Amino acid sequence: MKSHTEYLWFNTHKRREFVNITDTVERMVRSSEIKEGFCLVSAMHITAGVFVNDEENGLKSDIFEMLENLAPYRKDYKHHLTGEDNGDAHLKSLLVHHQVVLPITDGKLDLGPWQQVFYAEFDGQRRKRVIVKIIGE
Amino acid sequence: MKSHTEYLWFNTHKRREFVNITDTVERMVRSSEIKEGFCLVSAMHITAGVFVNDEENGLKSDIFEMLENLAPYRKDYKHHLTGEDNGDAHLKSLLVHHQVVLPITDGKLDLGPWQQVFYAEFDGQRRKRVIVKIIGE
Amino acid sequence: MKSHTEYLWFNTHKRREFVNITDTVERMVRSSEIKEGFCLVSAMHITAGVFVNDEENGLKSDIFEMLENLAPYRKDYKHHLTGEDNGDAHLKSLLVHHQVVLPITDGKLDLGPWQQVFYAEFDGQRRKRVIVKIIGE
Repeated sequence: MKSHTEYLWFNTHKRREFVNITDTVERMVRSSEIKEGFCLVSAMHITAGVFVNDEENGLKSDIFEMLENLAPYRKDYKHHLTGEDNGDAHLKSLLVHHQVVLPITDGKLDLGPWQQVFYAEFDGQRRKRVIVKIIGE
Repeated sequence: MKSHTEYLWFNTHKRREFVNITDTVERMVRSSEIKEGFCLVSAMHITAGVFVNDEENGLKSDIFEMLENLAPYRKDYKHHLTGEDNGDAHLKSLLVHHQVVLPITDGKLDLGPWQQVFYAEFDGQRRKRVIVKIIGE
Repeated sequence: MKSHTEYLWFNTHKRREFVNITDTVERMVRSSEIKEGFCLVSAMHITAGVFVNDEENGLKSDIFEMLENLAPYRKDYKHHLTGEDNGDAHLKSLLVHHQVVLPITDGKLDLGPWQQVFYAEFDGQRRKRVIVKIIGE
């Protein structure tokens, strides 16, 4: 079994942003030289997520709207008694989930025709990290 | 390390449907001859999901109802400016998540007594695919 | 490739409870002697979840509140026609997801500074199980 680990750093301009990282992850898979295996893409912060969906601007704004409906930005989260103001970001991260496992077949990400991998930042404008860890052979 | 990859095709009669694929996945695990490892079951389309829960009709209808409340079918999603009408299916897919990783122990799916694996179709009536990829030894 | 499998038992005092299992899982990783790999932590019951987030009491109560808003305790779930009363627990489990995959690097959980692993019980006060399965080398 081989393994390959890299870290991706983000520092988004906006507080909330979806960043398409498909090509970056694909490049890491190629440099791992692993032909068959799994690629874990996992946020290392608890106010960010990783998900797979469509690269389409309308949809991205629909996703933000849904998450804002289900876990709205609010002043009165109990978490804010610590001095933080990012309670909604923790909740949004839980809902989209903080990680995906991507299959690797024949040395490439084995994704469907429209599947793209996104880093979902819900409390940005500071340096945050994602781990990309590949195991296989 | 060994790996084993298969693809499952679906073409559901209804637009929205949950299909129990536990036995099919179990069969694939057996034919992989992998005794200890992980089995990734992952939708390759962005309007479908995969989840683990109970085979009980009342519950399945409760799950649909919850998803319809949280991500309702609507005409006015921004995604629909592209000509699509399946914005809700993308959002429902995000909420249930598009994949699970099933543990394999002693050559079998190591699931709890009531755990069943479902393909969740939210925009069906056309051919769609799920990857089942097993790695281990 | 090596593998290591353990089961964690829970019997929570309260019906709903989040239990921080980070140290327990870390100990299992150490005893596996696997240096590079993946650690799957997956609930074996369909009314419980596993998630990664912050060890902060205010936030934990915010998470419960959000889940209660999105999937409230109710008498009239269709699932209750079977005699059960835990429909909300199934739905909450779906929303937080029932599993995580933790990266292992250099023999340790490769988590971000604030990431903690939680068992999320939504229908407790009875014995329930989580599988921790590690593969790698």
